[in-house]
Formats: sequence, C-alpha cells, structure tokens
Amino acid sequence: MLQDLRAALGPQGCLTGADVPEAARSDASRTGHDLPLALLRPASVAEVSAALAICHRHGVAVVPQGGMTGLAGGAQPQAGQVALSLSRLAGVEEIDGEAMAMVVRAGTVLEVAQKAAEAAGFLLPVDLGARGSCQIGGNIATNAGGLRVLRDGMTRDNLLGIEAVLADGTVLCQMTKVVKNNTGYDLRHLFAGSEGTLGVITRAVIRLRPLPGPRGTVLASLPDFAAVLRLLAMARSALPGLSAFEAMWRDYFTCSQGHLPHTVLPDPPPFAVILEADEGPALEALLEAAFEEGVITDALIAQSFAEARRFWAVREGLEMDAAMPGLINLDVSLTTGRLDDFAQACRAALQASFPGAHVSFYGHVADSNVHVAVHVPGASEAEVHEVDAIAYGVVRDFGGSISAEHGIGTLKRDWLGYSRSPEELAAMRAIKAALDPKGLLNPGKVLPE
Amino acid sequence: MLQDLRAALGPQGCLTGADVPEAARSDASRTGHDLPLALLRPASVAEVSAALAICHRHGVAVVPQGGMTGLAGGAQPQAGQVALSLSRLAGVEEIDGEAMAMVVRAGTVLEVAQKAAEAAGFLLPVDLGARGSCQIGGNIATNAGGLRVLRDGMTRDNLLGIEAVLADGTVLCQMTKVVKNNTGYDLRHLFAGSEGTLGVITRAVIRLRPLPGPRGTVLASLPDFAAVLRLLAMARSALPGLSAFEAMWRDYFTCSQGHLPHTVLPDPPPFAVILEADEGPALEALLEAAFEEGVITDALIAQSFAEARRFWAVREGLEMDAAMPGLINLDVSLTTGRLDDFAQACRAALQASFPGAHVSFYGHVADSNVHVAVHVPGASEAEVHEVDAIAYGVVRDFGGSISAEHGIGTLKRDWLGYSRSPEELAAMRAIKAALDPKGLLNPGKVLPE
Repeated sequence: MLQDLRAALGPQGCLTGADVPEAARSDASRTGHDLPLALLRPASVAEVSAALAICHRHGVAVVPQGGMTGLAGGAQPQAGQVALSLSRLAGVEEIDGEAMAMVVRAGTVLEVAQKAAEAAGFLLPVDLGARGSCQIGGNIATNAGGLRVLRDGMTRDNLLGIEAVLADGTVLCQMTKVVKNNTGYDLRHLFAGSEGTLGVITRAVIRLRPLPGPRGTVLASLPDFAAVLRLLAMARSALPGLSAFEAMWRDYFTCSQGHLPHTVLPDPPPFAVILEADEGPALEALLEAAFEEGVITDALIAQSFAEARRFWAVREGLEMDAAMPGLINLDVSLTTGRLDDFAQACRAALQASFPGAHVSFYGHVADSNVHVAVHVPGASEAEVHEVDAIAYGVVRDFGGSISAEHGIGTLKRDWLGYSRSPEELAAMRAIKAALDPKGLLNPGKVLPE
Repeated sequence: MLQDLRAALGPQGCLTGADVPEAARSDASRTGHDLPLALLRPASVAEVSAALAICHRHGVAVVPQGGMTGLAGGAQPQAGQVALSLSRLAGVEEIDGEAMAMVVRAGTVLEVAQKAAEAAGFLLPVDLGARGSCQIGGNIATNAGGLRVLRDGMTRDNLLGIEAVLADGTVLCQMTKVVKNNTGYDLRHLFAGSEGTLGVITRAVIRLRPLPGPRGTVLASLPDFAAVLRLLAMARSALPGLSAFEAMWRDYFTCSQGHLPHTVLPDPPPFAVILEADEGPALEALLEAAFEEGVITDALIAQSFAEARRFWAVREGLEMDAAMPGLINLDVSLTTGRLDDFAQACRAALQASFPGAHVSFYGHVADSNVHVAVHVPGASEAEVHEVDAIAYGVVRDFGGSISAEHGIGTLKRDWLGYSRSPEELAAMRAIKAALDPKGLLNPGKVLPE
C-alpha cells in the first residue's frame, strides 16, 4: 500500500517512519498519543481521490487532518491508521465580487483567506481565535463557531459550495456560487460538521459579506440575569449591526481579571456584558435607555482599540490556563432564557462531588452558548472524566447540547446520547454506512461504538 | 390496511373513496391527475408514526401533502398510493422570546404562524406569495425561498430544530431552540429540501427576528446590467438593512406593465430595480451617489404603501398569467455576474427553436436567482417540454442551478442531472436507501429513476 501511495503522491506526498512529524499525533486537546502509519500530503483533488482509493482497496483507515487546532480529538490517528493532511492543498482560487463568494482550497489557513477577502474589499465571516493556524477545511468539517456567529452564523451558514471525496475516492463536486439551489439533497450541510467521517473536504465556496464599519465596544455592568436578557432583547431590536453580546458571570470575571496585569472593573458586578455594534447614535441611545430602566448600572465605552482589547482579554481568560493548570473548559448550549438556571444547577452538582472546585460561566449568550470553566486542583484523569459526566448530565436534564461549537470527536463521544436520541444515532449510523460502507473514514470519531 | 388505518386514525383521519377531496390530486402546477387510495389526516405525531408504520408493513407508498401550493409536482400521488395530509397537525405550540424561537406544527398555515410571531413582537422571516395557504411543513420540505432571502436566507437558514418521521414510523426528534449544536450529523438540513422523500416533517423550531422598522421602497432606472451590478454592490455596503433587490429586464417590465391598469414608467429603461431598505438618510445618500456616478438615470421613491404596491405589481406580473394563457415560468440560479449573459444566451436559444416566443427575465438578482417568463402561443405539451429542455440546457452550460427555489418534484426530475453530477445522484440514492430502504416515501419524486 505504501508503495502505491508513494507512486501516486510522490515522496513529498507520503511521509513514513521517522519523517512523520510529531504534530500528527494530537490536536490542541493534547490527548492524542499514536503516530500514524503514514502522513499523506496530497497536493490536488485528484491526489486526494487517488490516496483514498488506494487506502480503500487495502482496507486501511484514513484520518483527515487540517490545522490540528480542534479540541475534541477528532483528527487524532490510532496506530495503524493513515493520516491525510490537507496542508498542501492550499490557496484562494478566486474571489467573485458580484457573487460575493470565495473559491478556496481546504488546506488554506483561515487568516490567509481572511486577508485575501479583505484585500478585495470583503469580510470573510468565519473568525476564531485559532485563525493563524486552523484551516478552512477543518472549519467546515467541524462547523466552527467563533466570534461572528451572532451576526453571520456558523461556518455552515457561510458555505455556498463544497467539494468532498468519499472513502472510496469518489469526488462529489458542487462548487456553486449561487445562494439558492433546490436541486435534491443538500450534501453541503451533510459534510459540514461531520468531522471527517463522511468525506474529505477538498474545496469550498465561502460566502463573503460587506466589510463592517467602525465598531463600538461597550463593557456593561448588570444586576442580574434577567437584566442580561432584557439588554439582549433591547440590543437586538435597536442595533441591526449587533455583532457581539458576551456575558460573564461574576465568578468568571473576578477570576479572569485577577490573573491579568490590568484591572478593568475593580468591583465586578453580578453580570458583565461586552457588546459590540456599529458606532453611532443608536448605540448611545440604547445605553441611555438601558441605564434609565435600571437594566445596566454602569457602562464603559472603549475609547481606543487598546481599551477594547483589555475588555476582551477578560472575556478570553487569556491568563487563566497558565495560572490554573488542568483547567477544564466545557462548551455547551442551552435555551437562552435558562442559561442562569443551568449555571446554578451545574455549579451545585459539581461542587456536591468536588467541594473545592472553582466553577465559573461565560460565553456567547445571544447564541445560546455558554462555556463552563472548572478547576479541580490536582484532578486525576478519572476525576476530569467525572467532571464531564456531571456537567453533561445537567445539560441533558436541561435539554441542551453537549457541544455547541467544538464538535464531538473522541472526547465527547461517550455523551453524544445525552443530546441525540437512539433513533437519531441509528439514522446517523445508516448514513455513515451508506457513504462509507467499509467504515474506513475517521473511524471511532463522532459516533459511539 | 385501510381497516388498520381507520382504527389508528379514526374516521376523520382516514378518508377513502368519494370522501377524498379533489384537491388531493394536484399541487398548484395543475399537473396531477390521480386520486390517492386514501387521504390520511393524522392529528398528532403519534398518529403520523402509526400511519406510516401501517403503510410500511403493507408496502404501500405514502405521499406527504401540505398546502398543495408547490409548482414542481412534488406532492402529487399516483393511483394506488396513499396521501398523508398534515393539515390537522396544526398550531403554534410556543413562542420563546429570549431564544427568539417558535415551536410550530407542520400543518400550520404560514400566515397563521407569521401573525402569531407579530403578535409577540417578532418577525417570522419566511414569506412568500402563497402565505395564506402554504404550510410550514411544506415550506421546510421544499426549502422555500420567497421574499426575504436576501436578508434572512432560505427556509433552512431559519430552522433551529426539527421533528420528522421516517418511512417505517421511527420518530426523529431534535426540537432544539439553540443556535449552536455541533453534535453529529445535521439531520435538520437533510430533511429540509428533501421534498418528503426522506421523512415526514411533523414539527419544527423556527428562528424569529426583530420586527423591521419602516421600509423605503425605490424603483430605479438603470442603463445596463453593469449598472445593476454596481448598484447592488453599493447597496450591499451602504445599507445593512437591504431587504429586496429585484431586477426587471426591459422586455419583462414592458410586458408586465402593459397588462396592468396603471403605468409606473411610461418609457421603461433597459433595467429597472426595486430596492427596499430601512427608510432614512443612508438610503437617500445611496441614491444620490448612484445618480452622480451615472449608475441610475432616475429613481422613484414610493410616497405611500399603495405606490410601493404599484411598483411590486409590475415585478409580480400580476396580470401576465391571465393575459398570456400557457405562460411558462422557469426558476433558475446563475452566478450573479453572469445573469445577463445567461439571459441573452437563453433568449437566443429559445427563439432559434421558437421564433415567435416572447422571452423575458426578472428576479432576485442579489440571490443569484432569475425567473424566465416564456410565452409560445398555442404551445403543445411536447413543445412546453422542449422549452424546458432548451432553457435548462443553457443553465447547465452556465454551471447554474435548474431549481433555485421551487424544488425538483416530478416536473424537473428529468433535468436534475444538469445541475448535479452522477456521483452526487448516486450519493443521494444511497442516503435515500439508508433512510427508506423499501422506497415507500414519496417515490418517484426528486431522484430520476
């Protein structure tokens, strides 16, 4: 098989033995241990197809890899499996200004694509912290969320066309730039979010948006969660350009700020919200109305980009991972109105089992997505697993989603049944078997065994 | 079988013989001829499941029916098949203001759901001409487009959760209100647009939006298609609230206006555009800039709702169907920048075969969607088919979509291969076989035999 692969991909396209880089072991979760049998690096769609056909003939499993920035273990190989990196299948092929669409190869680093869009006068609406190393193909395969979901949606919502290769090497090409295309089943949305288990995404057409105007960034103090919901409702009506609405529960704000070199709010309020929207009178009028209603008790308006960055540094908890080794970050979705009920129930459940645990909440409230930061000093691997089980159990009881934006991979696979029914899992398995009958594409990911 | 069905659904839920209404024969295309063996009218999800399980056991095909407003023959039964109407499974179950979500049953008439949303202070963003009789379930099953796509997307883009019943009666329930949910394959987008061939949609969670403010409606005159594209680019950048951008080629404007009781533009320009956006200085500034650049040669701003309706009456061609019996309306998508090249090629190809044909173009330019109105006086059924074949052939040559928003049903099935590759069709068939192995759900629709 390796001979066939070398013949099809050339020496640069098929690395084996000591040539396989360490980075092929694990994604950013640092939970992958095995090196793959080979690291394939096809440089064209035809080479992806040839490589998959060869592995299929030999019955060897293939694990697609992008920028390896995932947090769910979805791109990690097991010994004996082959990894397939899209890194050499990179580059922006076309920007079509009239169609507001970018044709881009899967291995393109997100930031490279963003800059190409900006140079042409457009916004590429997918954005996340890992932009400098994550790849478009991985963004699509995991349906990445990130920083612009409130205004522009998830990655899938910005996808016009797709090209993907099935396990047996069959190329499915629907690289359309049109917005409306009701011609049979939507394969685009089937591959988006399937985490490399149904096909290897090779190219895509991404929708572009107009470049936004100057942003206003506000850090507001609020007395309770009802006020957070009220401010959100007011902002949604009054600010069509609302692009961020991030809430921090007091515990989180205090903890994150405590590890930073600067202090933004010396006396953190019960809830703090970072709100971003178009600069201008509508934003000012909203703050005034919210203040008069008692919805906000204070608001800082960033006077510079640097000040806005200081607000965001608290939200991003930039120093928390370093200061709190073993910090567990969970990513879940709950019905917006019940986020604080969930936070209280989740904290109580975790502290019942781990009395010393620090549990705090923050996240994209407008997107029904909250992150849970849990710190159990000196926790063993089994205790980390127990933390997951307790928190996801509360998510299940609230009818929420155990993965808002990070995906399932291997790390959340055991709990997929908390958010999807046995009937849904059976339907997913039937679809997997229909497109990959031998089960060779990223086996063991997403679907519990 | 009919005995079992009557026992499961009651006498009201299973109509046979002379009790089956004539309306069960055909959708709005008026091409359906057969009455179904029975018309099932389940009043709950459990009854839908029971009815499908009974038909599955007996190996009888089931055709789901909504408001019967489709134009592609997708809901039409053949003799010996059973029709399943969702009309009794109707009603809005919940409006969640914080989640901005409506929980609604499939048989709910769109306008009923729209009014419920408005009464709660929200916009339900799906809207189309048939709003008074089409049903939410059918809107989802056909991924309806309509009048708000530019701003809010197609029906699938406004879908948060779904419940659907498979051919064997298995209920798949993912009635989530959360925006972010990366937990395995996205079954929501698989059922949306599948035209009842994969499952019967029974309930859904639809995303709501803030109610828009007052609209400004403009009818602009433009010298050529390059100016249409330039005005579109200017409007996209300057008007975040842009909600309509509809172009009419001169032939269409002249023809449509000629059949109306009022005259809007006595001397129609090469291109006319209806543009809708938030009222206010941004809209006025845009028109001024476009006029100075020579992009528009004139612009009427509607001074009343009645005047805006007169602009739209031309666009909707309200009197054309009556005045031109047998008028053929095609619904296709092309890359935006090539729409006029397509129009010229399509007109030339049609007039080469039908020298007396009147061929005109209009549509949702910002959505890459154009409609073609073709009139061949006295055309036979075979000639109508020939018109379709010629026009869709040009769409294929331009790499476009033969169905932008109407779907495939039976009427466009022969041409599905013009927009989707043999490999894609094989993948669709594999998915169909995985979810409906006996092929009993709406057989013969969408996929060519």
